[in-house]
Amino acid sequence: MPKNIRSACIITIGDELLIGQVIDTNSAWIATQLNRLGIFVRRRVAVGDNRQDILSALRQESAFSELLILTGGLGPTADDITKPLLLEYFGGSLVSDQRVLDHISFLFEKVFKRPLTERNIKQAEVPDSCDVLFNRRGTAPGMWFEKEGSVVISLPGVPHEMKGIMTDEVIPRLEGLRAGQHIVHKTLLTAGIGESALAEHIETWEQRLPGSLKLAYLPNYGMVRLRLTASGDDAAIVNETIEQEFNALQALVSPWLVIDRDATMQEVVFDLLKREQKTLGTAESCTGGYIAHLMTSIAGSSAVFRGSVISYSNDLKTQLLSVPGEVIDQYGAVSEETVTAMCSGALATLKSDYVIATSGIMGPDGGSETKPVGTVWIGVASTRQTKAQRFQFRFDRARNTELTATNALNMLRLLIISETNAR
Amino acid sequence: MPKNIRSACIITIGDELLIGQVIDTNSAWIATQLNRLGIFVRRRVAVGDNRQDILSALRQESAFSELLILTGGLGPTADDITKPLLLEYFGGSLVSDQRVLDHISFLFEKVFKRPLTERNIKQAEVPDSCDVLFNRRGTAPGMWFEKEGSVVISLPGVPHEMKGIMTDEVIPRLEGLRAGQHIVHKTLLTAGIGESALAEHIETWEQRLPGSLKLAYLPNYGMVRLRLTASGDDAAIVNETIEQEFNALQALVSPWLVIDRDATMQEVVFDLLKREQKTLGTAESCTGGYIAHLMTSIAGSSAVFRGSVISYSNDLKTQLLSVPGEVIDQYGAVSEETVTAMCSGALATLKSDYVIATSGIMGPDGGSETKPVGTVWIGVASTRQTKAQRFQFRFDRARNTELTATNALNMLRLLIISETNAR
Repeated sequence: MPKNIRSACIITIGDELLIGQVIDTNSAWIATQLNRLGIFVRRRVAVGDNRQDILSALRQESAFSELLILTGGLGPTADDITKPLLLEYFGGSLVSDQRVLDHISFLFEKVFKRPLTERNIKQAEVPDSCDVLFNRRGTAPGMWFEKEGSVVISLPGVPHEMKGIMTDEVIPRLEGLRAGQHIVHKTLLTAGIGESALAEHIETWEQRLPGSLKLAYLPNYGMVRLRLTASGDDAAIVNETIEQEFNALQALVSPWLVIDRDATMQEVVFDLLKREQKTLGTAESCTGGYIAHLMTSIAGSSAVFRGSVISYSNDLKTQLLSVPGEVIDQYGAVSEETVTAMCSGALATLKSDYVIATSGIMGPDGGSETKPVGTVWIGVASTRQTKAQRFQFRFDRARNTELTATNALNMLRLLIISETNAR
Repeated sequence: MPKNIRSACIITIGDELLIGQVIDTNSAWIATQLNRLGIFVRRRVAVGDNRQDILSALRQESAFSELLILTGGLGPTADDITKPLLLEYFGGSLVSDQRVLDHISFLFEKVFKRPLTERNIKQAEVPDSCDVLFNRRGTAPGMWFEKEGSVVISLPGVPHEMKGIMTDEVIPRLEGLRAGQHIVHKTLLTAGIGESALAEHIETWEQRLPGSLKLAYLPNYGMVRLRLTASGDDAAIVNETIEQEFNALQALVSPWLVIDRDATMQEVVFDLLKREQKTLGTAESCTGGYIAHLMTSIAGSSAVFRGSVISYSNDLKTQLLSVPGEVIDQYGAVSEETVTAMCSGALATLKSDYVIATSGIMGPDGGSETKPVGTVWIGVASTRQTKAQRFQFRFDRARNTELTATNALNMLRLLIISETNAR
């Protein structure tokens, strides 16, 4: 039994990952979990549904890492080749696992209400050279193999099944195997300053960082995340060192600091609203419900989020948000006057303490000489005041929408803070 | 100059990919582009910001593939180590590229309106052993190297910059280098049948597929995509073979067929509405604007999408959608009666030809004995009829939201088709 797992490789299997049909979200999730255990992911490799390529990856990565986690290639259909290959690689013979078979029968009879097929019965077969990792959420079990001091874990690729097996079976077992290494990450979020300017600003501090600390810049949608990582064998020293330097960093970037942890802008706004016991509503034109979606993705958001009017067509701006038709005619839907009127209308209609209003041209079409694609007006308001600002983004539809949402939430954050401080 | 590029490896660089802080969307996009050129992505590898690991990946992958595309590790900040490493690996010396420097100066002066820093000026320095790939959208240029018959391309990791360089510079050059190999994918979308049952249903056909064809099952959110891939040297034969088998497959799965291409459910609904010249509005409670966001993510959606009421709080259901307070009191917000009333209200308020209404308990909290977490009522309606259905999902908040949106859009699709056929 391997005792000291320090580094891992995640191998994802499936042609869909190589032709770009599917975006791999499993690897990021697994990496986060392993990091919490102090296991460092050294490499991630994606290969296709091809025997030889899977085998090469298995052999090659065993040389780098003590732990390999394979995802994908375990479904009931004929494109799956991972199980026979693992049987060949680790030896043993296929046996039917009674607990898995019972679970598959239960799922088909009671949940899916579909007849059990021969293919599904075969999913209960596992090599007798592995420990079976029970899959509460689906039909394909996970498998835990050990060979020459390495652990190889095979999991289905369906994200919620993979997560279930990791949580129920894999993490508890790994807890017992991990080495004494401690890895701590601390992240903060800044807004309103570019990556290079930020780097210049903290250069002196960064150059004096001890060798056990590493700083990374993660720019995204007009914000920059700074991540500090400390590692070492002594947990107390690791914690103390990172705490001290993270405090110094926070002080240095205070003019642009949004929050001292790895949170999204919507989480920061949610926490602020909750603390102040205030509510939010949105009046969205160009963002088409995206800001409402970001807010309602947070569990418990009904405590602060009242609802929205998505006034994609102009007549709904008038009907539901009382934006005078003459304002739209005279200044256009994308104007300071319109978003300001949308704010007043939304406060009255949605009866929330704060509102956000957006109107813009997201592209690829609809731009003009004076209002090119990417022109966006954002308004934020409380019952006491309204602030509106024009932005000019220069990207595609999806990115313009992201940038509008981030900036709108940041404007709201600053408004709430200014009103809280003024009290 | 290498002449026949058949296979490629994508190497992504950055600790954020290994600790799970960032999900890699670049690789999927690059893979799609390469596939169109007939270049097959054989492996994808992610490594951290670590000299030795980047170097190992470069050496190792050169043995597998004639084309390596590196993304990441080219920003202005100190965590970037890729450029010096490429200089060492390919030789040469650093020279300042005038066109890049002019562009960086322009960006800082005219667009960012921030002072140019020493770090930014250094971004214009490139090894004289590479061809510079101009970055219209940012400061870090791409680089094209050749060594021992392999092409190595280094690109910044910021998605829109990477995409710009690929489109402007890399793809046109690769067009001239690709081999005569033809790869064609054809995908269809099914709904209402599970993966195993589908596999049983088409088993005989699948077993008789010629060896040059490959079938893959891609289950996702209650739908299954089937992807057929053909490859070969003769374009005419490849096209004819896949056409014939794809037609046979379509006929076989016709009871569950949604569309004969790789489209999302919202794209299918958008196309239907556009063809029928009908409009849509949504009344969303539990989906919190997500369906509106999916629809408005489509360019040109304003032609069919009128808007939404996101009635997250119950009083807005009454105020904006005329749902009687007694209905909510008697049956609850999550009920057939409430979504049916939301549908009528939405038709009146939003003045669209069709509406979707959702109300449910997304979790993790808020469930009860009779309405556990995952209970969702979906209604779809036209001015002529309303259909409501109860669903019981068993997953987390994000997945329950996805499943609700997909099923709601599918219910609407079936309603539109039935009314179109009845005409």
